[in-house]
Amino acid sequence: MNPSDRATAEGILFTDQYQLTMAQLYFRMGLHERAAQFDHYFRDYPDYGAHQAGFCVNAGLDWLIDWMQRVHFRPEDIAYMRAQTTRSGGRLFADDFLDWLQANGDFSGISLMAIPEGRVVHPNMPLTVVRGPIVQAQLLETALLNFLNYQILIATKAARIRESGRGQLLLEFGMRRAHERGANAGTRAALIGGADFSSNAGISHVLGLPPKGTHAHSMVQAFLALGMDEVDAFRAYADVYPDECLLLVDTINTLESGVPNAITVFEELRRKGHQPVGVRLDSGDLAYLSIRTAKLLDDAGFPDASIVLSNNLDELVIWQITTQIVEEAHRYGVDANRVIKRLVYGVGTRLITSEGDPSLGGVYKLVGIQENGAWQPAIKISESREKTPNPGNKRVWRVYDERGHATADLVTLEDETPSTQSPLVLRHPFTRVKKRVLEPGQISRVEPLLVDVFADGRLVYDRPSLEEMRTLRRQDVERLDPGVRRLLNPHVYHVSVSQKLWDLKDRLIRELTGE
Amino acid sequence: MNPSDRATAEGILFTDQYQLTMAQLYFRMGLHERAAQFDHYFRDYPDYGAHQAGFCVNAGLDWLIDWMQRVHFRPEDIAYMRAQTTRSGGRLFADDFLDWLQANGDFSGISLMAIPEGRVVHPNMPLTVVRGPIVQAQLLETALLNFLNYQILIATKAARIRESGRGQLLLEFGMRRAHERGANAGTRAALIGGADFSSNAGISHVLGLPPKGTHAHSMVQAFLALGMDEVDAFRAYADVYPDECLLLVDTINTLESGVPNAITVFEELRRKGHQPVGVRLDSGDLAYLSIRTAKLLDDAGFPDASIVLSNNLDELVIWQITTQIVEEAHRYGVDANRVIKRLVYGVGTRLITSEGDPSLGGVYKLVGIQENGAWQPAIKISESREKTPNPGNKRVWRVYDERGHATADLVTLEDETPSTQSPLVLRHPFTRVKKRVLEPGQISRVEPLLVDVFADGRLVYDRPSLEEMRTLRRQDVERLDPGVRRLLNPHVYHVSVSQKLWDLKDRLIRELTGE
Repeated sequence: MNPSDRATAEGILFTDQYQLTMAQLYFRMGLHERAAQFDHYFRDYPDYGAHQAGFCVNAGLDWLIDWMQRVHFRPEDIAYMRAQTTRSGGRLFADDFLDWLQANGDFSGISLMAIPEGRVVHPNMPLTVVRGPIVQAQLLETALLNFLNYQILIATKAARIRESGRGQLLLEFGMRRAHERGANAGTRAALIGGADFSSNAGISHVLGLPPKGTHAHSMVQAFLALGMDEVDAFRAYADVYPDECLLLVDTINTLESGVPNAITVFEELRRKGHQPVGVRLDSGDLAYLSIRTAKLLDDAGFPDASIVLSNNLDELVIWQITTQIVEEAHRYGVDANRVIKRLVYGVGTRLITSEGDPSLGGVYKLVGIQENGAWQPAIKISESREKTPNPGNKRVWRVYDERGHATADLVTLEDETPSTQSPLVLRHPFTRVKKRVLEPGQISRVEPLLVDVFADGRLVYDRPSLEEMRTLRRQDVERLDPGVRRLLNPHVYHVSVSQKLWDLKDRLIRELTGE
Repeated sequence: MNPSDRATAEGILFTDQYQLTMAQLYFRMGLHERAAQFDHYFRDYPDYGAHQAGFCVNAGLDWLIDWMQRVHFRPEDIAYMRAQTTRSGGRLFADDFLDWLQANGDFSGISLMAIPEGRVVHPNMPLTVVRGPIVQAQLLETALLNFLNYQILIATKAARIRESGRGQLLLEFGMRRAHERGANAGTRAALIGGADFSSNAGISHVLGLPPKGTHAHSMVQAFLALGMDEVDAFRAYADVYPDECLLLVDTINTLESGVPNAITVFEELRRKGHQPVGVRLDSGDLAYLSIRTAKLLDDAGFPDASIVLSNNLDELVIWQITTQIVEEAHRYGVDANRVIKRLVYGVGTRLITSEGDPSLGGVYKLVGIQENGAWQPAIKISESREKTPNPGNKRVWRVYDERGHATADLVTLEDETPSTQSPLVLRHPFTRVKKRVLEPGQISRVEPLLVDVFADGRLVYDRPSLEEMRTLRRQDVERLDPGVRRLLNPHVYHVSVSQKLWDLKDRLIRELTGE
């Protein structure tokens, strides 16, 4: 794609056609500047098949803000729409609408609240709340979902991999298998959700982190094809990068060639006063090879050299590797914990594609529209009460128990403010008979989660740094119960609704269905 | 991301850090302008778990060409690299290297051959062959894999969905669940591989196709919230789009509300001389609802109105829907085939993410390097002969049998030209004892698949249009055996190697392992 086409494809026309046809309809009806509210939320945690997430990590907002501030209908976009025809050969979009769209087709009337990036989030609570003229709010839908769904998906996967990695360094390596330009968003989300660094050079620069990487098999192969040996390749690398010497040891044979050659070069480096960084294992039985490699490095006097593991890692594979090391290390006279503490995980494909569940089903639903100055709640009846969105203008609160753990999130109408001073009724969102009551002594804090981002198109949000997002994520994950954090069959975190919200939804469903 | 950051993150630094560290190593060794050859190929068809592909569709080249022609090391990129430090606080990249890189860090020395987009391709054959100075060729790796792997993955999925859709119109609807900006590449690949149109407005414009789309549930909901009815929403839509009237009928209840209201509005349209387009079903039992909806439309005199289906469709779901219609339609007095022939499939998430297998394991392997004017083949020993790349400079041929069916692809060394006049030996790529011999009478044609794209950095390729790519895909799919095309347990298509290539690989493995 050339730069001019790219500007078209990534500008305001980065949207579904029906947003444009609906916009003309609202214009024709005189409804185009009617205020409406849409909620963005997801209905289910990612489900990877054999395992499933018990929490998600929010991400993607910052790049959405940039996009919203930058795009508008350019003359080229209007010219394109003017050229679209109907089946009968007429114009699909009329001039009066296109004139209005060129003058008003941006996000300058939008008010947006959102839960900050890095925060732990759950299903069926509004993560992003959009209010504004219905045409603008509707035009935002596709890009908002595209930007936020993917980054939440990847931040969540990264958080899981970090959990299974027992806090060891986690590197994101997935660029070559990512979904094209989505790679950059994926890397960013991984860095919010749990990765420490990435191999992706450009986006690391943009985010202010050093990219990580050493050499590929091809470097060793090139030396071999030119009649030299693996040790010559390692020595060349050590000469150029004496303080960054991390060697990939599996091009020929890890234990018989790679690790011994690496140790030879590490000894040479040590004699010159440099400390080698470590080795990378990229194939074979990584648990067994880690143990054996650790022993060889220990025996050669390099107990601090790292062992970087890569090759189709994910949360379960890492769990398997550490479990196997715990069980087997002693047979080789190595302390399992010391092996695990020198591991670094390089995770590629399965992180950046969220292998097992490559999409988050985030939706963007109309929940209210203004009529004669008052908000009318909107609802869509679905097959089940679960899929029927919560109507009306709402707020989200996190309720912490007496230990400071997050015990439930509560969705209320916007005029409700839960108090820590009186009993708090948490209604199950779908099941009429289920509810939970927290007494004041059981509640240490009730925290509002949504913050103002845009007010009538004006940015009112102090955009946090990547490091601040990571701090939020660390804090929020720490405040979860261990049962919610575990990799398999996590406890279900409570996302409740207030009595007032329950009553409103109930009334609207009855009105619409006559139940 | 702001535009300046985007230029950094999507320019030449859209790469893994180790490409940069290796580049400096080659520079330091004086090897940086040494010619090398890399092959891009994948080892396995996508495997979706319960089902797996029997062929792939090539895609992605055109956008790779654009990127290669546009990017180079800008002063900002060099400044960034100059600021990178080592653990001891020194500079990671030295000035002499950076000066050379700024002057030479582009793809002006690259020769590239590729199999055209839209062609059917298979594992373990070079799809893209890159030859050039080792630093340039290595710097291309990450972006090449990123661009091509994803588009091949999605073109392949689209081809499968087209197969199961029995040739009915296929619309790509996945933008909101795609991996961020990868959405545009995914839409393009879907359009090459099997989709007719897309809802993605911007990229449809860029590719010269009309985008498709009508309205969302939110439009009906807005009318309801304002005190009007579903039929008012439909009527408004028909007023604005009398010749494009496709109505989403499941906001309240498909059979009791949506379809009857649509028929009311269709009758009004007909009286005004317009022909309604049809209805869209987005929830529920789509097979059952299609039959019942078809009957209602027939009875009202709209036998040509389309029924668009959407909601988590993929190749298996479509197969299930058509199978169920075949079995059940007669019970409702409807001809199954006529129902199926009015269906249109709108496929979203599961196409654009390649649900079930969201990555293609394409690799980029060093296969040769020049030494004293002669090419030295390069090899990397893996755990298995399957994973060990074919060494040397190679060509790929498609062998057609006497019926004109593609019967095998053959990978040879570059100085071999298979003939239709003498027996053709097709060696199994991994198993020593397996081979197949085709007599001249069994071969109707042997076709070279790789074409020249860049010659020493100069574009020598007449870039085909999207329509030409789709024609190639249709022809190639038609030439496959039905067993290879089927959705479950497809026959394994033969990708063979020549005797000379077998012998070269065998010799190199023995030399390196001492087997």
